[in-house]
Amino acid sequence: MDTIEPEVKAEVREEISPDLTGPEAVARLNRDMQRNSLTPLWQIETNLMSRQPRTQTLPWLWKWSTLYDIAERAGALVPIERGGDRRAIALSNPGLEGRPFATPTLWTAVQWLNGHEVAPAHRHTAQAIRFIIEGNGSWSTVEGDRVFLERGDLVLTPPWLWHDHGSKSDERAIWLDGLDIPLNNYLDASFFEPYKGEAQAVTQALNGTVLKYGVGQMRPAWEKRSVEYSPIFTYKWTDTERALDNLAQVASSPYDDIALEYTNPHTGGPVMPAFSAWIQMLRPGIHTQAHRQVGSSVYHVFEGSGETIINGVSFRWEKGDFFVVPSWAWHEHHNLGGNERAILFSLHDTPLLLALNKYREESYQLNNGHQEITGTFQPV
Amino acid sequence: MDTIEPEVKAEVREEISPDLTGPEAVARLNRDMQRNSLTPLWQIETNLMSRQPRTQTLPWLWKWSTLYDIAERAGALVPIERGGDRRAIALSNPGLEGRPFATPTLWTAVQWLNGHEVAPAHRHTAQAIRFIIEGNGSWSTVEGDRVFLERGDLVLTPPWLWHDHGSKSDERAIWLDGLDIPLNNYLDASFFEPYKGEAQAVTQALNGTVLKYGVGQMRPAWEKRSVEYSPIFTYKWTDTERALDNLAQVASSPYDDIALEYTNPHTGGPVMPAFSAWIQMLRPGIHTQAHRQVGSSVYHVFEGSGETIINGVSFRWEKGDFFVVPSWAWHEHHNLGGNERAILFSLHDTPLLLALNKYREESYQLNNGHQEITGTFQPV
Amino acid sequence: MDTIEPEVKAEVREEISPDLTGPEAVARLNRDMQRNSLTPLWQIETNLMSRQPRTQTLPWLWKWSTLYDIAERAGALVPIERGGDRRAIALSNPGLEGRPFATPTLWTAVQWLNGHEVAPAHRHTAQAIRFIIEGNGSWSTVEGDRVFLERGDLVLTPPWLWHDHGSKSDERAIWLDGLDIPLNNYLDASFFEPYKGEAQAVTQALNGTVLKYGVGQMRPAWEKRSVEYSPIFTYKWTDTERALDNLAQVASSPYDDIALEYTNPHTGGPVMPAFSAWIQMLRPGIHTQAHRQVGSSVYHVFEGSGETIINGVSFRWEKGDFFVVPSWAWHEHHNLGGNERAILFSLHDTPLLLALNKYREESYQLNNGHQEITGTFQPV
Amino acid sequence: MDTIEPEVKAEVREEISPDLTGPEAVARLNRDMQRNSLTPLWQIETNLMSRQPRTQTLPWLWKWSTLYDIAERAGALVPIERGGDRRAIALSNPGLEGRPFATPTLWTAVQWLNGHEVAPAHRHTAQAIRFIIEGNGSWSTVEGDRVFLERGDLVLTPPWLWHDHGSKSDERAIWLDGLDIPLNNYLDASFFEPYKGEAQAVTQALNGTVLKYGVGQMRPAWEKRSVEYSPIFTYKWTDTERALDNLAQVASSPYDDIALEYTNPHTGGPVMPAFSAWIQMLRPGIHTQAHRQVGSSVYHVFEGSGETIINGVSFRWEKGDFFVVPSWAWHEHHNLGGNERAILFSLHDTPLLLALNKYREESYQLNNGHQEITGTFQPV
Repeated sequence: MDTIEPEVKAEVREEISPDLTGPEAVARLNRDMQRNSLTPLWQIETNLMSRQPRTQTLPWLWKWSTLYDIAERAGALVPIERGGDRRAIALSNPGLEGRPFATPTLWTAVQWLNGHEVAPAHRHTAQAIRFIIEGNGSWSTVEGDRVFLERGDLVLTPPWLWHDHGSKSDERAIWLDGLDIPLNNYLDASFFEPYKGEAQAVTQALNGTVLKYGVGQMRPAWEKRSVEYSPIFTYKWTDTERALDNLAQVASSPYDDIALEYTNPHTGGPVMPAFSAWIQMLRPGIHTQAHRQVGSSVYHVFEGSGETIINGVSFRWEKGDFFVVPSWAWHEHHNLGGNERAILFSLHDTPLLLALNKYREESYQLNNGHQEITGTFQPV
Repeated sequence: MDTIEPEVKAEVREEISPDLTGPEAVARLNRDMQRNSLTPLWQIETNLMSRQPRTQTLPWLWKWSTLYDIAERAGALVPIERGGDRRAIALSNPGLEGRPFATPTLWTAVQWLNGHEVAPAHRHTAQAIRFIIEGNGSWSTVEGDRVFLERGDLVLTPPWLWHDHGSKSDERAIWLDGLDIPLNNYLDASFFEPYKGEAQAVTQALNGTVLKYGVGQMRPAWEKRSVEYSPIFTYKWTDTERALDNLAQVASSPYDDIALEYTNPHTGGPVMPAFSAWIQMLRPGIHTQAHRQVGSSVYHVFEGSGETIINGVSFRWEKGDFFVVPSWAWHEHHNLGGNERAILFSLHDTPLLLALNKYREESYQLNNGHQEITGTFQPV
Repeated sequence: MDTIEPEVKAEVREEISPDLTGPEAVARLNRDMQRNSLTPLWQIETNLMSRQPRTQTLPWLWKWSTLYDIAERAGALVPIERGGDRRAIALSNPGLEGRPFATPTLWTAVQWLNGHEVAPAHRHTAQAIRFIIEGNGSWSTVEGDRVFLERGDLVLTPPWLWHDHGSKSDERAIWLDGLDIPLNNYLDASFFEPYKGEAQAVTQALNGTVLKYGVGQMRPAWEKRSVEYSPIFTYKWTDTERALDNLAQVASSPYDDIALEYTNPHTGGPVMPAFSAWIQMLRPGIHTQAHRQVGSSVYHVFEGSGETIINGVSFRWEKGDFFVVPSWAWHEHHNLGGNERAILFSLHDTPLLLALNKYREESYQLNNGHQEITGTFQPV
Repeated sequence: MDTIEPEVKAEVREEISPDLTGPEAVARLNRDMQRNSLTPLWQIETNLMSRQPRTQTLPWLWKWSTLYDIAERAGALVPIERGGDRRAIALSNPGLEGRPFATPTLWTAVQWLNGHEVAPAHRHTAQAIRFIIEGNGSWSTVEGDRVFLERGDLVLTPPWLWHDHGSKSDERAIWLDGLDIPLNNYLDASFFEPYKGEAQAVTQALNGTVLKYGVGQMRPAWEKRSVEYSPIFTYKWTDTERALDNLAQVASSPYDDIALEYTNPHTGGPVMPAFSAWIQMLRPGIHTQAHRQVGSSVYHVFEGSGETIINGVSFRWEKGDFFVVPSWAWHEHHNLGGNERAILFSLHDTPLLLALNKYREESYQLNNGHQEITGTFQPV
């Protein structure tokens, strides 16, 4: 067993010999650590390794009336041009120190496209989906494959594929943008490239990937399975709604009622490696039980009205609203729309946590699984 | 380095010393090998390890008119009862020494169920599918999940799940049975158990798995992914036909035209570990190019008429016929139905070959990929 | 719902109307089925789908004294040359209708190489391993990578890699050959190619893959993981013996005592997709409990003496013997060598059964897990 | 196509009509966005989605003489007790705003254990390894499995397994701590639990997992493969050094010379889902070529002296030093120790980037792959 640089140890020993254990020695030690870019674990361990997650992320809700107002004004005031390729307004969680992120891993924004505008083509390593709030004759082209967008469609723009969006109508289109920008930047993995020219040529049949894979339970027999991302670029609302109505006839979750995950038909897994997308129907009168998971989520109210109770606080929502559920926060959903169904679209970073073997979930045991409501969220 | 039983070698050496190398010694050696259940590789190597596959399996075709005639007579003459749970008539490839198998790995049969009959419940480790030729109000129940059968439906009965079939109508039902019985027996892996009582109770919503997974590009968000078999027990013809029509608008294979593989939505893989199921549309006038693969296939003509050229021999087929393509046999398909589409349903043991890293394929290079026809198959 | 060829049904109905249900009709039906290459399930179902595996494979044992005698005589009488590339003598299970296979999936042979001989280079899709009984200065070259062989080494020749074997010494070398020839031929997947020229050039460092991966718990950091076969071509006996001695200090199996599976360091899985290789030490006095699995095995006695009880019959073995355990046969091992360890090398087709979701195992419950011995196997 | 809350849009339209496009409207829009926790993408897009990674992480180096001095003084001044379970001093990258992390995903610290001390047992979801700089009779117990630590050993403490460390000698032990604490906290996935009592009982044979799996190319035949973490808890230096010497005889990387990744023998993958551990030997005189990857790394100089050139700056290192290579930074290694080998131990978050499909690498093309040196790093 060899040892390391005894002579150094010698010096050191002398230097500190006069006062080996006194408070002065401790103070000097702390100063020396700081000066040398070192930090003592023993002063921070209980914060650094918490008994359970202590997230900065706040449960939060953004009202559609506000979002729409601001988006519409931006539509009138802000041009789309290179360097600001998209007219997107990002939900910025107040807990995240001013960073424009809905949660630590998820970027969510409302994007507004005026009639006859084109959002120029580019590609990036950030993983992106869009959920269409109002399509109004707008289209997306992903790697030469164009689809016309309708309310409720989910559109994927997988990593590093060229994509642009445009409109052939006189009306504005509006959609939800979901990307893993925060994660991508946290990992220092951001690459971005503008397309030479504004919009790509359409090289495939319209709705090509919908036609090729859209039935979902079959695939071209001659094709190798791509596991990197879903080969379906658009999940049409008509299919999604049919799947919800079908599922409602046979099964439901006590925590999420009629909940479906969009899947990659080549793997059965999530639509992106970094996050999954859900659509969920709360039937009339449904009040789900509370549970919590490791991982953060963003919800958009596609239809209906109700409340989601997060750590005992009621977040009342209406059609168009967005809200965030942080990691390990108790949450339950409640449809308050009388005889109307409520439909929630949501993003979750669960796949990332599963890949890292960090996922956990727990169901709320007290009071038949229902939290006591201790407050109500008041939007600004 | 130790050596082994010198004393034995000593004896032996004496015994054979008088004539060590003459023809008599060789003859005696061969006799001794045979007597001791041993076989010399050097006499059989070129047969045992052939330059390329030398299959016993014959390309063959069975006419629907014959199958229907015999099945109908069996319907009148043969009761369904324990020990003969199914009225199934097996395609028996003449190359396979009288074994009742279509290919070395695949069992294919025509099953006939009279109105108001029930084929009693049982389960087995053999992996099974059924493709419905005429449903006529018949039903299948798989593990308590009942589905009513219609022409063109694919029904799965995964390994070791209880299943029974019955009819509520006055008409007979007819379907194709596909199982891996030959493989299952070759591997000495057959387990079989009759159900106590005739038919299972229906414990799920009708068409439960169709409703739960049938849209295919989404799945219940709370469910773990089962990779052992497809959670869809029935693939409805309406979805299948829609998928064919969709695919025809965007892509095709030079060898198989509009070909789809039924997939397990939990994995994107085949419906069974041992074989895959395909549906394939040959558009009017299509004549595909020839190729060959390692692995055997069985085809059923669901619609239309045409020919498949196998190793230079034309197999003419009409609606209802069945035919076999052996391993490594050149084959190409030709729709001869004028303006009519042709639709082929088929089974392939490809997944087994892929799992064992034994799959190969090759495309025919001469004559623009078309074989020269040297003969025509004549049914008995 | 369309129906199929009514006119055919019409004819048929007439033809059979005179005698629809009598014995004559049944006899004619059976004749017509046979004439048309069809087989009725109802006459064979109980045999075809057995309650549990009914294998033809016989438990069997081959004595080393016999194998050695015959191999030595073959060494004197049989040259190695093209078309008989290997002087291999195959264990031919008497249950398998004269086919030269130890089990339905596994080929096992004793190969004899005289000093200064070279077994010419070739490649094949059959998956092959060799276990060295006596190395005596012989070598193998696999894809340019040469290793010198010592007693107890396991050597892999993965599918379609060139390999040749030779000797630089005056003594003969002897080894066990294990291949999936029966499976490869059953699947009509055999490809074989002789090398141009006799032996390959040595292009890698001696023992290259041993040096590159042999420590096993680390791999070249820059290398992609190959999952098709193990990148280690030789597992040296010194490492194997060390692993057995290590494991004996911490754990054992009630059924197999100190049993290790050779693994592919890139996957943790078996050395070949089609079969796995085991080395197993029975400590002095050990008598394991009985169990059974789906799948067949071949054993070679590397050291020691004892018995294996298979379905109640005692198979007494000594150093050098080979024996077979068929699918679903109860078996237990008993070391009868006093204070000596016994070491068994074995091959199992388990990976194939696992890949197909057909694997099962069961442990013997009666008599503390020990079968009653009802007989003793007598070699010819 | 329904539209959303026209009445709201009406109000809004009035409110903003007087000044729809002027600078005042823009200013008011920006104020309203900020007030409502919203951020306009168009003002930040080029920063948010950079052309290539723009990391805050600084390339940095910590001198062993400083680390040893401070650790030794901490050993004299700081007790180990609950809440400060470990006497660990964390490398705190100056680029990371005072957070005590070496890189955005990796925590690295020097831990000092005095003779006869015990660092109390606990468990956490953070994934941890330790690399032993001086063992001196210290031990680790992981889930009842105790191993005595020697210089160069790699010890794993997989997620949520109990572990404690202690010493039976009069000398201090020193090791490198590597954890994914930054990632675990970023994902709000931290769970921590102290053990009841100080040290676990030893329930397994000493060095149990070393004995069970340490040879690495074999595993207990009866065991299911665990894919969540490596079943080897300690990788002994003697094996590691042997693997380096073996590999040096057959292959090397132009970028990393003789580099090995520690692997999970059950999967062939990294030792933890979140990061991989490497050991690497730079042979005398070796100067590698430059390349860069997405992902961050921390290096420890186990032996020798040299420099690593990071983005053109030379970081000179000696035995015991630590340094960081940020994401997408060009780097090359240079052994300056004359006839001595240099050995680097390192951690990399590559597995995380691969799991997310975000990994990229690029090799430096200019100047035969060698960067021009533009400066030298000066430690504080």
